[in-house]
Amino acid sequence: MEKSNYINLNPMGIENDSMKIISAELSHLNIPAELDRIIKRVIHTTADFEYGHLFEAHPDAVENAKKALSQSCNIYADTTMITAGVSKPSLSKLGCEINCFVHHPDVIETAKEKGITRSICGIDKASEDESYKIFVIGNAPTALVRICELAKEGKIKPDLVIGVPVGFVGAAESKQMLKESGLPYMIIRGRKGGSTVGVAILNALLYDMTNRKI
Amino acid sequence: MEKSNYINLNPMGIENDSMKIISAELSHLNIPAELDRIIKRVIHTTADFEYGHLFEAHPDAVENAKKALSQSCNIYADTTMITAGVSKPSLSKLGCEINCFVHHPDVIETAKEKGITRSICGIDKASEDESYKIFVIGNAPTALVRICELAKEGKIKPDLVIGVPVGFVGAAESKQMLKESGLPYMIIRGRKGGSTVGVAILNALLYDMTNRKI
Repeated sequence: MEKSNYINLNPMGIENDSMKIISAELSHLNIPAELDRIIKRVIHTTADFEYGHLFEAHPDAVENAKKALSQSCNIYADTTMITAGVSKPSLSKLGCEINCFVHHPDVIETAKEKGITRSICGIDKASEDESYKIFVIGNAPTALVRICELAKEGKIKPDLVIGVPVGFVGAAESKQMLKESGLPYMIIRGRKGGSTVGVAILNALLYDMTNRKI
Repeated sequence: MEKSNYINLNPMGIENDSMKIISAELSHLNIPAELDRIIKRVIHTTADFEYGHLFEAHPDAVENAKKALSQSCNIYADTTMITAGVSKPSLSKLGCEINCFVHHPDVIETAKEKGITRSICGIDKASEDESYKIFVIGNAPTALVRICELAKEGKIKPDLVIGVPVGFVGAAESKQMLKESGLPYMIIRGRKGGSTVGVAILNALLYDMTNRKI
């Protein structure tokens, strides 16, 4: 271990030290208390302080989401990277489940038939089950557009939409559409975002609900 | 669909348009042909052009990796987000497998006993199986340090180490250590990186090997 003695090998120590560095660098920003943990976790996940400026939430988003989580809602994600990254112990404590249907045989078939994204068809499938109250979109603008459409038609009534698709085509526009939809949202304005960002936001909420320290 | 008519709903069309935008914005950089696809995919995944400057590869990295993949090597990743995100059709065509052991019962037990990260113990477990020739580290600096140590001791001989842990404590140092180790590496210098970046690099290699267009 001769060359690694300057690297902290204790997992909670590493995270604790990281959060101290992030807090120090963010101290000039006036972040609302209820969003503090979320924004810090997004920066912890990306090492990109620009997210401190790009994150935006509906005033009711945190309260609505926590109420839904406390009532053991289910969560729909547009990527299996998100379902893999979310804290399973926290979900389990709350009695919540997270799913993604983009690899489901029905979804694959419908997407081929209609020539549209599997992400859209996955949202349609989730909309058939009222237990899905939180949506996390890290990849597909088309999924976010579909959520806005279904909500407008009165077919879904989510308590929180975490809209953080990343990309150059449609991502920024889809997040703006969500913001204007009237739904309780959390977004990253512009092109940035992604599955790890979606996981960071959701885990921050889950850790708050289950009294995990960091 | 009244508000979404400006959003391209065809999946391959979306990716194609994105790559055109990225190519145009990167045209001033002198990127070697063998790294072009990799760097563009990382930017496609993050919407962060800084990665064009932060990416760095050992001169033999691409050739070694492609040889190992063509010989159906196995791949070890430090997060289940990475195993979830990697292209399964491409892996299957090449006869390669990807695994992550951080949730394996043996690894959980050993990490608790020794008070070290599960990421380190996961690397130790992978090192017992010679078929793991490519390592993808998106999260844990300690995993990268362990790879360097095991290689120095002659216990592993990877054909490629994708070293892209993100973070504020040890990430940059662990990537510098990999660069100086003599191993075939691909890194993101500094704090940035993450599981999505690791997936982007690996998928770019896999798509090249399986003649996927974008």
